[in-house]
Amino acid sequence: MNHIDKPIIAITLGDPAGIGPEIILKALKNERVVQELYPVVFGDSKVLRQAMDITGLKFNLQTLQRIDQAVFQPNTIHVVESDIITEPVQMGEIQGVCGRAAFSYIANAIDWTMSGITLAIATAPLNKESLKAGHIPYQDQTEVLSKFTQTEMPMTLFMVDAMRTFFLTRHIPFRSIAGALTIPSVVAGLQRSDQGMRQLGFASPRLALAALNPHGGEHGLFGDEEMTILGPAVEEACRQGLKVVGPIPADSAFHLNVEGHFDAVLSLYHDQGHIATKCYDFNRTIDLTLGLPFLRIAVDHGTAFDIAGKNVANPTSMIECLLACSRYGQQARTFFKKNS
Amino acid sequence: MNHIDKPIIAITLGDPAGIGPEIILKALKNERVVQELYPVVFGDSKVLRQAMDITGLKFNLQTLQRIDQAVFQPNTIHVVESDIITEPVQMGEIQGVCGRAAFSYIANAIDWTMSGITLAIATAPLNKESLKAGHIPYQDQTEVLSKFTQTEMPMTLFMVDAMRTFFLTRHIPFRSIAGALTIPSVVAGLQRSDQGMRQLGFASPRLALAALNPHGGEHGLFGDEEMTILGPAVEEACRQGLKVVGPIPADSAFHLNVEGHFDAVLSLYHDQGHIATKCYDFNRTIDLTLGLPFLRIAVDHGTAFDIAGKNVANPTSMIECLLACSRYGQQARTFFKKNS
Repeated sequence: MNHIDKPIIAITLGDPAGIGPEIILKALKNERVVQELYPVVFGDSKVLRQAMDITGLKFNLQTLQRIDQAVFQPNTIHVVESDIITEPVQMGEIQGVCGRAAFSYIANAIDWTMSGITLAIATAPLNKESLKAGHIPYQDQTEVLSKFTQTEMPMTLFMVDAMRTFFLTRHIPFRSIAGALTIPSVVAGLQRSDQGMRQLGFASPRLALAALNPHGGEHGLFGDEEMTILGPAVEEACRQGLKVVGPIPADSAFHLNVEGHFDAVLSLYHDQGHIATKCYDFNRTIDLTLGLPFLRIAVDHGTAFDIAGKNVANPTSMIECLLACSRYGQQARTFFKKNS
Repeated sequence: MNHIDKPIIAITLGDPAGIGPEIILKALKNERVVQELYPVVFGDSKVLRQAMDITGLKFNLQTLQRIDQAVFQPNTIHVVESDIITEPVQMGEIQGVCGRAAFSYIANAIDWTMSGITLAIATAPLNKESLKAGHIPYQDQTEVLSKFTQTEMPMTLFMVDAMRTFFLTRHIPFRSIAGALTIPSVVAGLQRSDQGMRQLGFASPRLALAALNPHGGEHGLFGDEEMTILGPAVEEACRQGLKVVGPIPADSAFHLNVEGHFDAVLSLYHDQGHIATKCYDFNRTIDLTLGLPFLRIAVDHGTAFDIAGKNVANPTSMIECLLACSRYGQQARTFFKKNS
């Protein structure tokens, strides 16, 4: 093993039939990625070889059982094998074997990262249907991470440039959003966002709460949650020592965030924050999971079965994931250790 | 009057105490604006002189009673006076006299544009409180336009680059949004959007309907409006001859629109479309009013009383308004005449 002068980042291939393997190879040729970190890929050599054929990119593949076998050098990928995929994969298809492989990749990556060998995990997307077809009893990688690390409520942060957004609610019906807002739930959301930002290294995070109604309701003219719930929740959070402003009309909040008026926005619902980051910069948005013992960052797109295997997938989000793992990974671990 | 080789565009100053006059002067120095159109400003010379002092920009002001008095030449502004503002204005303050002036500007601009003298109207923002203080019985310029032109339901289109969004609902409480969706209301919204795009010159507009629930509900997993209302509405609209796709998860729809997969998106609610355009490009977004006998385009920001008179206001949105008036103005009139 050579002298380790850069963070070692775990990368999971995700679903072998999706675009994960392609974008990982492309990302590992990126100059900034090569400069800033050492990668360890959790996957299968068979899948990586297929991706090399697809992309025309060449790497030496070195199977790794223990980290002391690693000799990090340019154009070499160290692979922790799952030994599940031994035949060529049918690209773009739901396959149980691919679901089982994707599960194995994330499970192994968690083991290595919990042990402190790898600093943080960047994950390519998996396919929920393939997981199901493979009889894996988890919905997605975040659920696996949550269970394996015994983290009750991991937090999602979407980030691109200075735009950062947490979510008070996510995968619930639109009709249930307004009812999910209470002063305690919003204060708790702000507290969690504050903790999340601290885990990223912000010593005294400045938060904004997004409003619910158009124009923030215009003093009750159309909707009063700003006056009855959101405003009082911000006041209460400030009383508890947090730095929070708002509620701020949602069509201004994210722009003001990018301009530096505050460090992050707490969105009230999925699309509020997702529309913001994806319209600001669709390709560069990344999806951080905070509250875990280590940092996990996912690309903000899916397996894209329709273009998998065609060498057209854009690796930008994966590149951003890797760079952010390298940049924030140590701080995230240190903060977690100090505060758990 | 000189030979008219460019469109003559009406510009209203908006509230004299806001940033309108400043951004108009800045926009009228913009090279593309100078090249592409002749401006007629509906305002008061007193206000424009004050704005020249604020910005340091110089123009010759020529008062105009009739268009045949106009000799369009560089650095000359033709002003149709309201004669309401005769004293220096207190910047950034709610004043009844300013509300009355702003109303007079838009009223005069409508007269000239209805007569066909000016082709289209670009409007700077007014202040609702000032209107009220001036005892003007209208809420905003769009209401004035609607009443004066006897247009029952003018349509709002937000536009920036290829991103274009109509709105099914706007200034209603968030809690009322889901309830406002019915198959007939959505089909009607799609029909109106189609007409709006035709007025802009799209011969066979391709529309997308945004979804309501996160990920479009994932087949009813969280919310079923996509299956019970939005999907059937798209089918019905297609049966009626429209080109519509969707419902498309809202965090992808706008990005796909920019990439050219369709020409416009029908948003279901205010923030859905506003977050999209403002996060994509806050400064360049413009606000078109369609369904009128002529095109009206407004900047997408307010009077910004906090920075009015400080020469820091960004004229980008006003520049975009003027260029779009010039580009789409003739088509909008022709379409209206043919179809009314």
